Amino acid sequence: MKVIKGGVTAPKGFKANGIGCGIRAGKPDLALIYSPVTCRAAGLFTVNRVQAAPVVVSRRHIRGGRIRAIVANSGCANCCTGKEGERKALTMASVVARGLGIKAEEVLPASTGRIGTRLEIEKIRRAIPRLVSGLSAEGSGKCSRAIMTTDTVSKEAAVRLRIGGKQVTIGGIAKGAGMISPHLATMFAFFTTDADITPVALKAALKGAADLSFNRITVDGDMSTNDSVFILANALAGNRRIGKNNTGFKQFCRALETVASVLAGMIVRDGEGASRFIEVEVKGARTVKEAERAARKVAESNLVKCAFFGGDPNWGRIAAGVGAAGVNFHTRGLKIYFAGKQVLKGGAAVKTKKDVLLRLAKRGTIKIVIDLGCGRSSGTIWTCDLSTEYVRINAKY
Amino acid sequence: MKVIKGGVTAPKGFKANGIGCGIRAGKPDLALIYSPVTCRAAGLFTVNRVQAAPVVVSRRHIRGGRIRAIVANSGCANCCTGKEGERKALTMASVVARGLGIKAEEVLPASTGRIGTRLEIEKIRRAIPRLVSGLSAEGSGKCSRAIMTTDTVSKEAAVRLRIGGKQVTIGGIAKGAGMISPHLATMFAFFTTDADITPVALKAALKGAADLSFNRITVDGDMSTNDSVFILANALAGNRRIGKNNTGFKQFCRALETVASVLAGMIVRDGEGASRFIEVEVKGARTVKEAERAARKVAESNLVKCAFFGGDPNWGRIAAGVGAAGVNFHTRGLKIYFAGKQVLKGGAAVKTKKDVLLRLAKRGTIKIVIDLGCGRSSGTIWTCDLSTEYVRINAKY
Repeated sequence: MKVIKGGVTAPKGFKANGIGCGIRAGKPDLALIYSPVTCRAAGLFTVNRVQAAPVVVSRRHIRGGRIRAIVANSGCANCCTGKEGERKALTMASVVARGLGIKAEEVLPASTGRIGTRLEIEKIRRAIPRLVSGLSAEGSGKCSRAIMTTDTVSKEAAVRLRIGGKQVTIGGIAKGAGMISPHLATMFAFFTTDADITPVALKAALKGAADLSFNRITVDGDMSTNDSVFILANALAGNRRIGKNNTGFKQFCRALETVASVLAGMIVRDGEGASRFIEVEVKGARTVKEAERAARKVAESNLVKCAFFGGDPNWGRIAAGVGAAGVNFHTRGLKIYFAGKQVLKGGAAVKTKKDVLLRLAKRGTIKIVIDLGCGRSSGTIWTCDLSTEYVRINAKY
Repeated sequence: MKVIKGGVTAPKGFKANGIGCGIRAGKPDLALIYSPVTCRAAGLFTVNRVQAAPVVVSRRHIRGGRIRAIVANSGCANCCTGKEGERKALTMASVVARGLGIKAEEVLPASTGRIGTRLEIEKIRRAIPRLVSGLSAEGSGKCSRAIMTTDTVSKEAAVRLRIGGKQVTIGGIAKGAGMISPHLATMFAFFTTDADITPVALKAALKGAADLSFNRITVDGDMSTNDSVFILANALAGNRRIGKNNTGFKQFCRALETVASVLAGMIVRDGEGASRFIEVEVKGARTVKEAERAARKVAESNLVKCAFFGGDPNWGRIAAGVGAAGVNFHTRGLKIYFAGKQVLKGGAAVKTKKDVLLRLAKRGTIKIVIDLGCGRSSGTIWTCDLSTEYVRINAKY
């Protein structure tokens, strides 16, 4: 497996584009991904009870099983917009379909931005011809920039591997920044691949990759109404079709996990106002669920995250966080390691030179390991610090 | 029932004091409450799995049922300090007991401050004679100032009422600021009363009052290792003994709830960096538990709290928060009211003049009502906004 450039246009056949249509004044805000041949597709959506209109529409379209395009806007979530919002999401799909000469049901619409504001569909309608005519096999960069909201860098990744003697490519783009919590986030990740793969295998691979990437990151514990993860597979690689039970499947899964993990890591590093990347691993738990719950509780603690922002090795807050997670352990068996240095053992602080910890706490990437000492299960969550900049960004959005 | 001045020294007999012993350089950090006669006592403690040494000791002492003093320090939590920490918490109690001529088991120790640092017990030991000799019936103010950490104002309240023809007084002090989440917080609340009341009734009244006050506030969703709520009842009012089944009990409960609610409100208003007080009421839920869970999810959302800080009426984040709470409702039945103004109805935004909402969002106290439209249960949580100042305070503590 080789990491390559190119994002969603790295796999054979796919074209993409991104332009500004006027929703976000002066910024790119409309993105399109297109395959010249019909794709198998799979999708994962937010589990928030409040679901945006495009989520409702895309969920329906993906059930049809044959997709050729993804159209996404930033700057407006088209959420809490009622029946009118749904009509607009459908219009977005059908206008793109007309421009491409395909069916509306073959288009997945997606929106991200402020909740509760009306989608300016006329701006989108007018921009579609320009969006379509600019489609290119080098368009992934433009496309990924057009889905950014408070993101500061665009996020692309791709890998290439051989499956059964054929070259297969998987590419992806993502957006993140705020409202990032598991079970998807205010987050898009759009994947493309030229692999020939059955719908069942594609769905399973996507679910597995998301569990190991997007579902283990948290920026602020807030869950968005618009999260959408799509994958389109156009079979142009000409490989023997991948099913859930042949060897190619494992290879494909590992490759998709790689692309997803790279994108998830980029999302956390680019979390709103983030200055440090934090990995929280909990081991010695009775179950994986308890390990993940404890890791998440620590990773979502504002006090822990503020300490990381300040470069303060205040590991007492980590102990308090894990103690509040509602999982089983005894304080006397609890061990905490701060960037490789043990700080808690047998229920008491390990004597450590303060300046050693202070130096470790200033690193850009910090790993925390918490051993609950009562089982063999483990779990990992990635997060970032909580900065004054996060508050500033979100006080006015 | 009349709100009066005086805090913990308002009820007959109680004396208090607060001094600086050098743990928090130049600041008061050692507090004492004392009753000349033995008190019945009840206590509530943090449910964090990691419990501070004084919590372990006080839990044991309170089981004895006869208490005469509370000693508390700020500036060090004496948590994650192992067996040595427990010995120090016990020493704190026994040195105070010696100074007062009572037994160590009659003293409840409490500590608040940074986790994982050693308690400088010698400083406390040396200061006890001065702490005891300064005890006074007007000492509540000094006492409440000595338990402050990042609090910016000291918190006292008291009420007086007649029960069975006798004048009964309940007083209290509290500290809060950060690590404020339900099931107690990094929080102390110490109550005194001259009521004659059975231990069972006292415990029930304290539990009921905490559920309606401290357990419904949240500053940052973080749960401390040191939370302690104590009440001492010295029976000097000479009222007919209050039991769980006589009429005086209800009156006593209401009075204690009042004092506790006033203190809880003060804690939220003085949350670290807080500039606004937010009340989140969820109604129309299937169960009280679901109502409270939904209200808490909204009240703990960083995005919601940042919007309040910015005076931004971004109610879409409220909708996203309630949708992520894992409670049952249909978007089409969801209603949201922002400071009295309906903003969401039938799954869509209600047309409102933006400047009306902007004006409402600038208020110091804002009430959010969320009607899930699928039941008759309700629940309320109090919180504050999330400011750049909160991050600044907690980046270095």
